[in-house]
Amino acid sequence: MAAPGDSIEVLDHGFVRLDAVMADDLSVVNAARVSFGARREAMDDRDAGLVRFLMRERHGTPFEHNFFRFHIKAPLFVTREWQRHRIGSFNERSGRYSELPDEFYVPAASAVRTQVGKPGAYTFEPLPDDAAEEVRTGIESSYAESYGRYRELLDAGVAKEVARSVLPVGLYTEFYWSVNARSLMNFLSLRNAAAAQHEIRVYAEAAEQHFARAMPVTHGSFVDQGRTAP
Amino acid sequence: MAAPGDSIEVLDHGFVRLDAVMADDLSVVNAARVSFGARREAMDDRDAGLVRFLMRERHGTPFEHNFFRFHIKAPLFVTREWQRHRIGSFNERSGRYSELPDEFYVPAASAVRTQVGKPGAYTFEPLPDDAAEEVRTGIESSYAESYGRYRELLDAGVAKEVARSVLPVGLYTEFYWSVNARSLMNFLSLRNAAAAQHEIRVYAEAAEQHFARAMPVTHGSFVDQGRTAP
Amino acid sequence: MAAPGDSIEVLDHGFVRLDAVMADDLSVVNAARVSFGARREAMDDRDAGLVRFLMRERHGTPFEHNFFRFHIKAPLFVTREWQRHRIGSFNERSGRYSELPDEFYVPAASAVRTQVGKPGAYTFEPLPDDAAEEVRTGIESSYAESYGRYRELLDAGVAKEVARSVLPVGLYTEFYWSVNARSLMNFLSLRNAAAAQHEIRVYAEAAEQHFARAMPVTHGSFVDQGRTAP
Amino acid sequence: MAAPGDSIEVLDHGFVRLDAVMADDLSVVNAARVSFGARREAMDDRDAGLVRFLMRERHGTPFEHNFFRFHIKAPLFVTREWQRHRIGSFNERSGRYSELPDEFYVPAASAVRTQVGKPGAYTFEPLPDDAAEEVRTGIESSYAESYGRYRELLDAGVAKEVARSVLPVGLYTEFYWSVNARSLMNFLSLRNAAAAQHEIRVYAEAAEQHFARAMPVTHGSFVDQGRTAP
Repeated sequence: MAAPGDSIEVLDHGFVRLDAVMADDLSVVNAARVSFGARREAMDDRDAGLVRFLMRERHGTPFEHNFFRFHIKAPLFVTREWQRHRIGSFNERSGRYSELPDEFYVPAASAVRTQVGKPGAYTFEPLPDDAAEEVRTGIESSYAESYGRYRELLDAGVAKEVARSVLPVGLYTEFYWSVNARSLMNFLSLRNAAAAQHEIRVYAEAAEQHFARAMPVTHGSFVDQGRTAP
Repeated sequence: MAAPGDSIEVLDHGFVRLDAVMADDLSVVNAARVSFGARREAMDDRDAGLVRFLMRERHGTPFEHNFFRFHIKAPLFVTREWQRHRIGSFNERSGRYSELPDEFYVPAASAVRTQVGKPGAYTFEPLPDDAAEEVRTGIESSYAESYGRYRELLDAGVAKEVARSVLPVGLYTEFYWSVNARSLMNFLSLRNAAAAQHEIRVYAEAAEQHFARAMPVTHGSFVDQGRTAP
Repeated sequence: MAAPGDSIEVLDHGFVRLDAVMADDLSVVNAARVSFGARREAMDDRDAGLVRFLMRERHGTPFEHNFFRFHIKAPLFVTREWQRHRIGSFNERSGRYSELPDEFYVPAASAVRTQVGKPGAYTFEPLPDDAAEEVRTGIESSYAESYGRYRELLDAGVAKEVARSVLPVGLYTEFYWSVNARSLMNFLSLRNAAAAQHEIRVYAEAAEQHFARAMPVTHGSFVDQGRTAP
Repeated sequence: MAAPGDSIEVLDHGFVRLDAVMADDLSVVNAARVSFGARREAMDDRDAGLVRFLMRERHGTPFEHNFFRFHIKAPLFVTREWQRHRIGSFNERSGRYSELPDEFYVPAASAVRTQVGKPGAYTFEPLPDDAAEEVRTGIESSYAESYGRYRELLDAGVAKEVARSVLPVGLYTEFYWSVNARSLMNFLSLRNAAAAQHEIRVYAEAAEQHFARAMPVTHGSFVDQGRTAP
């Protein structure tokens, strides 16, 4: 598992780095025990039981008194899903103020997949190896053409904010995300889940490693309770 | 100005349509007057003065007891800025579940601009007509190539959620946005503003027309107070 | 059931009045169907099934595109629990700017209860009738003494914001609450529930009547899914 | 000024204690510089200028990537105003699960004030010393009567959640409050301000001391920009 400050590599060029963290299971216990005017200096077994009780009964607020700041590099289409989560803070690289670098997501052959089944009940299967390689090549050359056009537009003096229109959503961006454990669990329940798109799920798995290390009792309860956020 | 329910056309293929609205200046007055246990059935001049007082003194909560539901069609790069506004509700077209249609934003010649000045103090000037037309043609053919690749990938059986990686951020999407007047004014203060990108500003102008019609006293106070949200 | 605009009486002096509403099941369906670029003018059976699917799979955002504005009169101790729900808008009577009227909550004899069992697993039983009456009398005279002191302080020229310090949390206040169905269901799941205090539960029951009338399919799904908010 | 972890005494029995903090000016700079894909390891003069620019231009999000957890003891009427601030996390002592201790706010003689002027433009003046002492005695005896009644009700077997109805809003409670600098500045702009009630203002002053120590450049810019939150 990752140490705080560690960066976990994700996809072909991305990462989830824990930039700062102030989070432990004790903060959950103390937020709950203030109901009784009580406070602990360290966790014991009864406190672990209290965390499980809070998770099971969906008492969510005690899980909010902590802090994770992630630094993330991900494709735009992943970032778009991520930033729909409103309880948390984002700052992202700007395509208005800086030239965007030439880095794009090309799926590994095993991630070049086809969709099987009906709307609402899709499953995915990998394409055969040859087809997958052809797809990868096609995606790469499309990215190259688009980025070439972007450079041409910039060279012609077109403003960055206009030129970026031709850049595809496979482009990598980077952003900070600050969030508390309650909101993080909500994210994990939806994004490290079977229904999530593979490409955001691997990011959610990385974020979950950081979470599990900082708050092992909380994380264990989250898993035991079926990964439903309190 | 637009009637509720009207759709205002924006850019080459977009719109801002007011899908539902329950908003008037009286709701601001009554939310404020509940402080005194009072309630009015209709606005008078003193009530208009109260709205101006609330705006000036930044008493924001009375401006929250109303509702606007917009239906919007806009390019992805505009939508990305829009969805960073967290106090409000979004549902958007999905590129995982449906094939995305072949509609892209091509700037009008007058909007093909170059950036002048230093970071933090940019201004924009249009390119000469010939250059602008060349840029427009270049953008269009880049879109066509990217969309062609998208179709090829779909035809090869690649899942929609993977194939979309090559689609550029000039692509049109559509979404619902539900918001109250306080959050809407915050959006307008930032997006119908000199520092905003032209393409989101024209959407914000359209949304502001709908707002001004539903809540004229509130809108007038907002403008008079320098367009700072309370 | 209550008509929109109706006021439902709660406790001895309170009410839950639906001051304004723009909410129907169709808005849920359309917010979900925008994923596919589709839109309906009226609900059919498949749409009702879609609402149930969204509720079961905890797709919460489509339930946010609607609006309820309640006008509520309730004791301070109920209001304090209510206003901990952060996704929604409040404006309340002020004890700084107006003299607070002499209205207090005295529990009905059947609500004068004793606590049985251990922390975390309390149940409640009514006191015997005689004891309950004595309790009611005791509470009433305590309120009378406190309110008498409040009046004395005001008469001595003490500022309202200082004098109110002696007023008990059984005092009635009134407030507006604007909320969407998703946040309302979260409130109902916690407050119209066995673990909630009786006095807020009866308010939540009244709010739920208004909700059920405006959005019957959504409400039915909420109940069928075990009253867990999506 | 207070060290992180220090407790600042407020009013007769209250405090503002910084229970945990992860906040510095550098986090503001780095959240802003990610726009350009840049990152600093330490602040310099240009970075301080950037903080001032962000504050002036109301670019608020870079101020959100930090964390303050306060432990606060305050009267209920102060707490009620505090908990209306929705962007932040609260857990508070419960009157349902524990007996509330016999601690109440009695204003210092200098804080026994009368209200002068008209609604919307009140000022306050202290009462003469003799009158102030009489008021203090009156408030104390009212508290004593109310608390005596509370004890009687508990002794008669009445549930804590019912018995508390008679307790006045001068009662002390305690709570945790977790918040980021942007939301904290919004709180300070409204509560450490001339229009705020004296009793919450002294709490806001204490919270501001903790903030100023952790983020001196940010705090300085906040003050220089007229104490308006970005």
